[in-house]
Amino acid sequence: MTEAEDPNFEARVRASFARQAFMTTLGARLAVVEPGRVVIELPFRPDLTQQHGFLHAGVLASVVDSACGYAALTLMPPGAAVLSVEFKINLMKPAAGASFRAVGKVLRRGRTLTVCSGEAEAVDAGGSSVIAVMQATMMTVRDQEGLAD
Amino acid sequence: MTEAEDPNFEARVRASFARQAFMTTLGARLAVVEPGRVVIELPFRPDLTQQHGFLHAGVLASVVDSACGYAALTLMPPGAAVLSVEFKINLMKPAAGASFRAVGKVLRRGRTLTVCSGEAEAVDAGGSSVIAVMQATMMTVRDQEGLAD
Amino acid sequence: MTEAEDPNFEARVRASFARQAFMTTLGARLAVVEPGRVVIELPFRPDLTQQHGFLHAGVLASVVDSACGYAALTLMPPGAAVLSVEFKINLMKPAAGASFRAVGKVLRRGRTLTVCSGEAEAVDAGGSSVIAVMQATMMTVRDQEGLAD
Amino acid sequence: MTEAEDPNFEARVRASFARQAFMTTLGARLAVVEPGRVVIELPFRPDLTQQHGFLHAGVLASVVDSACGYAALTLMPPGAAVLSVEFKINLMKPAAGASFRAVGKVLRRGRTLTVCSGEAEAVDAGGSSVIAVMQATMMTVRDQEGLAD
Repeated sequence: MTEAEDPNFEARVRASFARQAFMTTLGARLAVVEPGRVVIELPFRPDLTQQHGFLHAGVLASVVDSACGYAALTLMPPGAAVLSVEFKINLMKPAAGASFRAVGKVLRRGRTLTVCSGEAEAVDAGGSSVIAVMQATMMTVRDQEGLAD
Repeated sequence: MTEAEDPNFEARVRASFARQAFMTTLGARLAVVEPGRVVIELPFRPDLTQQHGFLHAGVLASVVDSACGYAALTLMPPGAAVLSVEFKINLMKPAAGASFRAVGKVLRRGRTLTVCSGEAEAVDAGGSSVIAVMQATMMTVRDQEGLAD
Repeated sequence: MTEAEDPNFEARVRASFARQAFMTTLGARLAVVEPGRVVIELPFRPDLTQQHGFLHAGVLASVVDSACGYAALTLMPPGAAVLSVEFKINLMKPAAGASFRAVGKVLRRGRTLTVCSGEAEAVDAGGSSVIAVMQATMMTVRDQEGLAD
Repeated sequence: MTEAEDPNFEARVRASFARQAFMTTLGARLAVVEPGRVVIELPFRPDLTQQHGFLHAGVLASVVDSACGYAALTLMPPGAAVLSVEFKINLMKPAAGASFRAVGKVLRRGRTLTVCSGEAEAVDAGGSSVIAVMQATMMTVRDQEGLAD
């Protein structure tokens, strides 16, 4: 397992996630916080769907982006903040399921940029299945007034 | 201006957008529907933010993805449905503003795949500014039971 | 291991790769062809570099794109051809090494679209290291005159 | 037109391009260097093709990536170097033509990151046509030994 520079990484990620009002709006929950890996869970809700009744691609992107961003934050030095630079998502199957799991992992931690890979899984009584994959770039922001995580 | 194959394209896009429950959840509104170009407006709301008080990247991605998808749909034949294959978004400035505008445009319409470019603008009393850009691939789905737009 | 629909998949991929004149120009070699996974090897050459003496990002993109495309082709039905729809690459470390290995894997095989993940590794006496990752969409082209792989 | 911080931007870009050995290998030529915009021209050559006789997607990606990188460099302070962080390309039409033109433009210049949009056009007796679009992130590297452009 990768090592976290900040021994307080889990509390720090959980506090920052709690401030992401949009995660509360979606009903998302922070399930796992490990150095370099974060899992977010999201129950299905009809008010999060697109026109065919599947979860909207933007909802999936939101939780996978947050999972990737927080995976990056677990490895950042105390005092730094995380910002999403860009991400790309491939939607491989219709987002149908009782709930969803977004997994973000750090592939490469640099001083300024962290590259992450993300996945979204649909979970049902029958099991789980990967429905989307993401590649994302996160930025470590230092010494910027008002920005801390 | 590109030509729409379906003379009914605007009513069709408006009806499909109305079925995207997530757009209602976000408070998004379909502002412009032209052949090959769609604009969605989104007022700022504190419950759509990330941890620093800016609009969550996933919210931006959601409205720009919908704008791109519906721009593609304006040019699809009657009876077909639209699905997002993949998209990539670059977040160029913090998403701060009184409201936001997502613009989706068709760059290339193919039989099966449509390539779109998208933009998000932040709008304030002082004017507007492009804060994010997207490149997206949409799919025309034909003859699939239960899928129509 | 994923199953190939075409029992002749390896010969077919090798024949198509041999027709990719650009791979010969680069000095690339097809190392592994398995159902859903292809590896291409590329020795370093000074005429493939960018301005700082590292391998040009476009060279890496070329071999990883070919590895992804041929990974997709291993799973396509006889008579079909493969085309790259789009790809995204993150360059995580300077491309320095005695040789490079591009790995393409199928994540999701659909009737029309195949989603792949790719990696580029730099190889040296000291070992190997992942220097770039790709996410790519490939298309199965059927019944189009003059296009077959 | 955007303003260049370095009055010597054109000579600097031309010198760096001349050091990109891979551009020489491809037969690419720097056609236009303006603040925030660079155009590279590439004649068709059979040894740059994929298996169907079109230009290889990686060749297109190479010249558009270089055009984007050098567009970013035109706006960088003296002494800094440019590195490609990531790019995404959509291949919209088969790359058939007598020659090709890669255009890179700066969309957003930040202190560390520059976001660019790129295009590839195929040029024939009959005119030109956009065949691919790119979205790219470039990095300004300062004070790193041995890295300057």
